Amino acid sequence: MNLIDNLNWRYATKVFDPNKKVSNQDLEFLKEAIRLSVSSYGLQLYKVLIIENDEIRAALRKASWDQKQITDASQLFVFCNYTLDYDRHVDDYIQRIISTQGTASDDVKQYGEFIKTSIDKMPAAERKSWSEKQTYLAMNNLLLACAELKIDACPMEGFDNQAYNQILGLDELGLNAAVIAPVGYRSAADKTQQRKKIRKTKEELFKTA
Amino acid sequence: MNLIDNLNWRYATKVFDPNKKVSNQDLEFLKEAIRLSVSSYGLQLYKVLIIENDEIRAALRKASWDQKQITDASQLFVFCNYTLDYDRHVDDYIQRIISTQGTASDDVKQYGEFIKTSIDKMPAAERKSWSEKQTYLAMNNLLLACAELKIDACPMEGFDNQAYNQILGLDELGLNAAVIAPVGYRSAADKTQQRKKIRKTKEELFKTA
Repeated sequence: MNLIDNLNWRYATKVFDPNKKVSNQDLEFLKEAIRLSVSSYGLQLYKVLIIENDEIRAALRKASWDQKQITDASQLFVFCNYTLDYDRHVDDYIQRIISTQGTASDDVKQYGEFIKTSIDKMPAAERKSWSEKQTYLAMNNLLLACAELKIDACPMEGFDNQAYNQILGLDELGLNAAVIAPVGYRSAADKTQQRKKIRKTKEELFKTA
Repeated sequence: MNLIDNLNWRYATKVFDPNKKVSNQDLEFLKEAIRLSVSSYGLQLYKVLIIENDEIRAALRKASWDQKQITDASQLFVFCNYTLDYDRHVDDYIQRIISTQGTASDDVKQYGEFIKTSIDKMPAAERKSWSEKQTYLAMNNLLLACAELKIDACPMEGFDNQAYNQILGLDELGLNAAVIAPVGYRSAADKTQQRKKIRKTKEELFKTA
């Protein structure tokens, strides 16, 4: 199956089979797809929590409009953007470049200063938006990796992110829950899997100039 | 090749071969992958411009730090989020649901009102961020579709989006250029293609709880 087939196969799963678990091997594939995501400057300014613990998930479900995917899926992926200490994250990134590519460190350090200045110049609301956007790219890679393995998933914005931050202790870590996705296997009882996909036509969506 | 292989194959292409063009058949595949992107509520609150015209691209290049990918790639994809008239977009969406799924229109209309209220309640900065985020999901689908077809691409945030809006006449259409990606074929002269990918380790990026 190619990417288009996989995109047509997937859907936002409303009911997961709580008895079916994603294998460790498949989880490593999903993690690698996320790890290889594109991000602004390549910074990967986020951390991804994979929540399996039942008690934590019960608490998170309460902070997610009681949506049962949170507890019934095999795992819950929580994509958290960093909100603080960008200079340190850039320094870490520059170190990764030097150790991976063996690049001359003066040029690379100058590049690091350029990135720091660019981030610093952003108005606070724009910086917040910019760092959260990067997690959407990573989450999208998760969705496509799931579809390739015929694992179901449900991208979700409908949760109380401040409650998530509190339950998961994210504030202390300079992190913020930006977007989430439970993954696992659809239940036969999930009627939404039979619905036709709703999409604009190409004519509505694209304009060539 | 699977998704991981494709992700390892791709890179942010700095130099495109200006003589190589993406075929119409491949373009249709890229458009279909974008069309099938996930989006908040399924609204697809964006339009995607595919810029081929040389004069327009020369003007856009000036608004993109003179980066030559803008003019040398085969096409430039500009992902534009809608900034106005959300109620109308929701109404259009509800009509798409009714005509695609033949759903009982009262339930669906109620769902439309729920979406309108949710969007309306967002603070302005959050609404802006939210609608722009959706374009990142669509852009990511483009990148993965390109990688599957061995087409090169370069995701870019480094452009003057107000200049883009002006050059492309987007303000009048209630649109805003959020993120862009030139697509085409790498030049043999692009040395960045030989660089090792810089990524955090899985241990740095993930935490299981």
